[in-house]
Amino acid sequence: MATWQEVASACQSAVLQSIPEKWRLPSKPDASVTDVRDIPRTCGLITPQQLAITDQTTDELVTQLATGKLTSVQVTEAFCARAAIAHQCVNCLTAFYCEEALKRAAELDAIFAETGKPVGPLHGIPVAIKDIFAVKGRPSTMAVVAWRGKDWGFDAPIVALLKTAGAIHFASTTMPQTGMMLQTVSPLWGRTLNPFNRSFAAGGSSGGDGSLVAMHGSPFCPSTDIGGSIRAPAAFNGLYGIRPTADRILKTGMLSAAPGQTSIKVSCGPTCHSVSDLKLVTKLLFDYEEYIGFESSAVPIPWREVQQPKSKLVFGVMRTDGVVKPQPIILRAIDETVEKLKAAGHEVMEIEPPLDLWEAAQVTWKLYFQTGGKEIKALVGSTGEPLEKTFEWYLKTFGIKELTVPELFEASGIIEPSLVQYQLTVGAQTNLKQAAIKRQFAQLWASTKDSTGTGRPIDALICPCAPSASVPHDFPIWWGYFSIWNLLDYPSTIIPLKDFRISPEKDPKDTTYKPTDNPFDRMNYEIYDPELWSNLPVCIQIVQQQFRDEELLTVTEVLDKVVNA
Amino acid sequence: MATWQEVASACQSAVLQSIPEKWRLPSKPDASVTDVRDIPRTCGLITPQQLAITDQTTDELVTQLATGKLTSVQVTEAFCARAAIAHQCVNCLTAFYCEEALKRAAELDAIFAETGKPVGPLHGIPVAIKDIFAVKGRPSTMAVVAWRGKDWGFDAPIVALLKTAGAIHFASTTMPQTGMMLQTVSPLWGRTLNPFNRSFAAGGSSGGDGSLVAMHGSPFCPSTDIGGSIRAPAAFNGLYGIRPTADRILKTGMLSAAPGQTSIKVSCGPTCHSVSDLKLVTKLLFDYEEYIGFESSAVPIPWREVQQPKSKLVFGVMRTDGVVKPQPIILRAIDETVEKLKAAGHEVMEIEPPLDLWEAAQVTWKLYFQTGGKEIKALVGSTGEPLEKTFEWYLKTFGIKELTVPELFEASGIIEPSLVQYQLTVGAQTNLKQAAIKRQFAQLWASTKDSTGTGRPIDALICPCAPSASVPHDFPIWWGYFSIWNLLDYPSTIIPLKDFRISPEKDPKDTTYKPTDNPFDRMNYEIYDPELWSNLPVCIQIVQQQFRDEELLTVTEVLDKVVNA
Repeated sequence: MATWQEVASACQSAVLQSIPEKWRLPSKPDASVTDVRDIPRTCGLITPQQLAITDQTTDELVTQLATGKLTSVQVTEAFCARAAIAHQCVNCLTAFYCEEALKRAAELDAIFAETGKPVGPLHGIPVAIKDIFAVKGRPSTMAVVAWRGKDWGFDAPIVALLKTAGAIHFASTTMPQTGMMLQTVSPLWGRTLNPFNRSFAAGGSSGGDGSLVAMHGSPFCPSTDIGGSIRAPAAFNGLYGIRPTADRILKTGMLSAAPGQTSIKVSCGPTCHSVSDLKLVTKLLFDYEEYIGFESSAVPIPWREVQQPKSKLVFGVMRTDGVVKPQPIILRAIDETVEKLKAAGHEVMEIEPPLDLWEAAQVTWKLYFQTGGKEIKALVGSTGEPLEKTFEWYLKTFGIKELTVPELFEASGIIEPSLVQYQLTVGAQTNLKQAAIKRQFAQLWASTKDSTGTGRPIDALICPCAPSASVPHDFPIWWGYFSIWNLLDYPSTIIPLKDFRISPEKDPKDTTYKPTDNPFDRMNYEIYDPELWSNLPVCIQIVQQQFRDEELLTVTEVLDKVVNA
Repeated sequence: MATWQEVASACQSAVLQSIPEKWRLPSKPDASVTDVRDIPRTCGLITPQQLAITDQTTDELVTQLATGKLTSVQVTEAFCARAAIAHQCVNCLTAFYCEEALKRAAELDAIFAETGKPVGPLHGIPVAIKDIFAVKGRPSTMAVVAWRGKDWGFDAPIVALLKTAGAIHFASTTMPQTGMMLQTVSPLWGRTLNPFNRSFAAGGSSGGDGSLVAMHGSPFCPSTDIGGSIRAPAAFNGLYGIRPTADRILKTGMLSAAPGQTSIKVSCGPTCHSVSDLKLVTKLLFDYEEYIGFESSAVPIPWREVQQPKSKLVFGVMRTDGVVKPQPIILRAIDETVEKLKAAGHEVMEIEPPLDLWEAAQVTWKLYFQTGGKEIKALVGSTGEPLEKTFEWYLKTFGIKELTVPELFEASGIIEPSLVQYQLTVGAQTNLKQAAIKRQFAQLWASTKDSTGTGRPIDALICPCAPSASVPHDFPIWWGYFSIWNLLDYPSTIIPLKDFRISPEKDPKDTTYKPTDNPFDRMNYEIYDPELWSNLPVCIQIVQQQFRDEELLTVTEVLDKVVNA
């Protein structure tokens, strides 16, 4: 029987072998080349027309496909070419289905030629899909050796939805072993690199999506997020992303390291190149019933058209979570965003977290791993492959162990002492600590109404994505700026600040700062060096309340125009 | 310190004392009087105008209040009078706030006189509220001695919503100790009786609501349901009721015997006298954001107006769940409903449960009491009051004990063996067995589309409410016909069959039946005697898929016209 090393080596070779000769680089890019974004353009293996096609957004391509200006075969071949080059630069694929994709593209072109109509809102669009989704007839591994080659025998409803909308699955993308890391590395598939600086993390868990889309190797990807897994790759690769309200998202058919836990739910949203693409794909995800009918794993709230408020907007800004102070680059990015908003006639209110977010993170991690992670440890261990050290470090740091049910309900023990009585309480039927945190944030949000002067609460909250703009490989980054919104199930978007340039002069290390008493703040402070980060992109995060995804996207559009005009 | 018996006696006396002399019956109705529905009319303590007011539906009263044809003081006083008589007949109240209610009614009348407009859709309507809701400044006990007199200090959001809509809290209604029984009895408040036959259960847990509304002592009540607690009282008292999709319902501020469990959620819906009232109150419950703003314990899906399909309707009918065979009365009620539907031009398809519903009930009970009920036992035990024997019997029968988290996730262990692998599986992020059952029902429902001929799946599913029309006190009734829809979170309505008459000739005992191998089927069979049930009302249950509450109500309206025209 093959060792796990032999399995991994064979799996990784098979991906490379599935790339046609015509798209193989003569040699791997030299390790000294850290920024690989230009290689598709300079390698000479992709035609100018293919480069022009793949430089476009999904929205632009959809229009051209729906009017016959481009064929799906042209678009699919162009993305196959660019994805092939991307993979050889940043190791972002687990499977490549070029031939089958071109066949499906030809079918769709024939339908269009005959009917004059697109089959759906993504007619003819090639899409790479994360290795976490079940896809009928194709393997999905969750980056675990034990599941190499495993065909789950059905399409996850989101995959079925994309196909029904006219999309073509042409490649599968990497994710980290277990899915519970904000970088992308596994014994099975190796390490995915950041195309801006290959010494830095591509983000995770949808790191294959982030680096591939940044390389323009897929127009968008349907990424997934339970603790930052859409937003970290978007933020670290200078992209647009949204983690929609998880309750509105189809969940069946996603692999999981903690099946059965219902306290914090996985979401799915696009990693892409524009706010229009965020809207296009999120609308489709919300309107699933129109395409695939009733499905028991989501709340069917179809897309609502909302208008931008007529008055000025009022943004809340939470510059720090009080746990890990963002590095100077991030703080200046927020500062400049605030200044631009004010210059454009909007208002900004400072917001403090309504509770200790270190405590909230303890609750979050307890809820992620209610069984102590025993199933995922057993699954990984079953083939002898090692558990990723960084993942183990997090489990240890958060003291993860199997809870009893009363402990779970307490993680869950309610925060407001006045309501504790025999552990019975009002606020019934939701895990109690989580429910209490939800109430505290709802009260904070509602209270802003008194100060905005618009008659509304704040229109959105701006905050850092993370305390740094990506991190060197295996550095244990603080998830809190992402995961608090998972705990609350508040939707949030990521947008890049395209004009923002990191500067050793403007962003020096604050040598007077005394890190607080938690491991993340110290490490985040100590590692900082503006030179090290010099080529990396910077993004911000925008947040709204649960179920207000359409309002969030409307405000994101305004903000994007202000900062990226 | 007072014993629990002394506390209970004082609490029960206080309710009687709060009834003004003018509405006190000269003596308790004799125990031999089993049907007490006519006592408000014959006792001479209520005026003809008050009787006429209280005979109306909420919908009718709302119109008259909103046009100034009635004042809130008139309506409130009329319901206070009738509720006072009702309580003396069936013991359905835990508090009576007549004086305060009349004061509020006068305020609302003054507002109406000044503005010419109602303050909201329930302007001036007096409402009795179950003893499970927190109400600011008033006690809520959950029928537990330890909580006698306990003011939780805030209005549950549903109470706030009702008040904002113009309703007046004028009384609180009984529920059983723990809330987890389909009859209403507790050491604290005694036993609530069925007004059709006081030897029979009023149903539970909203038994105070059911018997009070049946006596026309409140126009409707906002009842709550996690296993049949709206529907059993509606069914046993010949009323209309709806258990809306729980995800759409505000939950904060309801007391709970199992706080922190999130697998099966509590819902709230009206117990009332017409389909119009079902719609009126359900619409308000769904539109809560318009009245009280963002609240973190519900999914905000406002009421959707839906049209009745233009073609004939196709109903599924599930005559038995294969676990407990309904008594002959119930089977004939379903038969006659089917015949009337066919005669009216609709179609009916027979539906078999897609899995063993005995197994589904085991999952349901495990999920109700994930900690083995330790908190509720501790709370009840803290004052020495005994735990209700019938409740204990259920815990024992379903083998309730504290689960480990992996056991919970397994209750939860997935049903389809093909998907079990290291206990990890697709279908992530929902308790697995429950999720599998949801998928099985969704597939069954979708599959009906091929046979209806309308291009739609069945428009609703008709099934029994329970295997019998109420039960004698303390008889352990089978919950399965109610609780399966809680497990799935499918909304369901109850409507009475007003023309249906129980008949010893038409409904004889089937002496050839051999009960199946579970305690419920045998007991349900053995106790049956058509003479015993002769005066009880019979209802049916109508079900739709999760979130399709509006479609359910539209179809319920059609069905109601067919059977009650």
